[in-house]
Amino acid sequence: MTPYDAVIGKRDTRSFAATAIEDSVLMRILQAGRMAGSAKALEPVRFVVLRDREQKARLAACGLATGHPLSAPVVVAIVLEPEMGVVGAPLTIFRGPFDAGRAVQNMMIAAWGEGVASCPASMHHADGARQVLGLPDGYVVANCIAFGYPAAAETGRPVRPRKPLSEYVHWERW
Amino acid sequence: MTPYDAVIGKRDTRSFAATAIEDSVLMRILQAGRMAGSAKALEPVRFVVLRDREQKARLAACGLATGHPLSAPVVVAIVLEPEMGVVGAPLTIFRGPFDAGRAVQNMMIAAWGEGVASCPASMHHADGARQVLGLPDGYVVANCIAFGYPAAAETGRPVRPRKPLSEYVHWERW
Repeated sequence: MTPYDAVIGKRDTRSFAATAIEDSVLMRILQAGRMAGSAKALEPVRFVVLRDREQKARLAACGLATGHPLSAPVVVAIVLEPEMGVVGAPLTIFRGPFDAGRAVQNMMIAAWGEGVASCPASMHHADGARQVLGLPDGYVVANCIAFGYPAAAETGRPVRPRKPLSEYVHWERW
Repeated sequence: MTPYDAVIGKRDTRSFAATAIEDSVLMRILQAGRMAGSAKALEPVRFVVLRDREQKARLAACGLATGHPLSAPVVVAIVLEPEMGVVGAPLTIFRGPFDAGRAVQNMMIAAWGEGVASCPASMHHADGARQVLGLPDGYVVANCIAFGYPAAAETGRPVRPRKPLSEYVHWERW
């Protein structure tokens, strides 16, 4: 699988097999997240890895569409350092979540290359998620990502359609 | 190059050869951005591709550290649809820039797999960037990405060090 194949073929998956993710694979996924670039090399992103069933359930309860983290063998909560995810100047806004998105995509692409599927889940109850994870003051949960081998029913499902490329791309000006 | 190799080996590059990027390669890079997942499948990210020297210079003038977009054969401005990049509820904040980061990383990983290097640049003067690109009301420029084959001096430079993985990763709780 080339990098392009992985990027194009990866689809968000919400239904997972019970198969555990081996530690070596998990460590490569985390390493992929660590190696994402960040604005000004600030490295504002951190990962909290959940495999404990009760802890996953507590975190999943902080989102409105979090059935998939419940069934996933591994959930990685994406945490932003203080002042990287709060309301503020435009640069502050773009920097933290943008870097989180970069790290998440690195992890999901690396995982996909090893046959591990994934899907993000928003944390609608941000304070609840902070408490479940025991985050220090000012840290926020940007998102959580469910990782697991896809359930049999999920394999072979086509990639979700996207708007046509012509709607995405403009040349020189809007 | 496996997806993992690309994700781990990719480094942000600010010095580019004059070599043009072929249209077929550029289209694959844009396609990679299009195929990134997005929260609720809203697809809020758009791309404005700049190859005109004067237009690149005008956009580069909207950032404080934008020498590299000036020297890059292709610059892609990452645009967010209205309400996806503005100050608001936490979900609004995380959704747009987070999805932009996912799309950008997809593009940069696919590019790296074809030997094309890249580096994001922040747009500090957001209103100026909007005017240069002629964006409709409410659209914002999240970032711009310089793409090009690396200058000879850039090849072989090691990946920038990162904080150790142990500082990135927590288990079950912070």
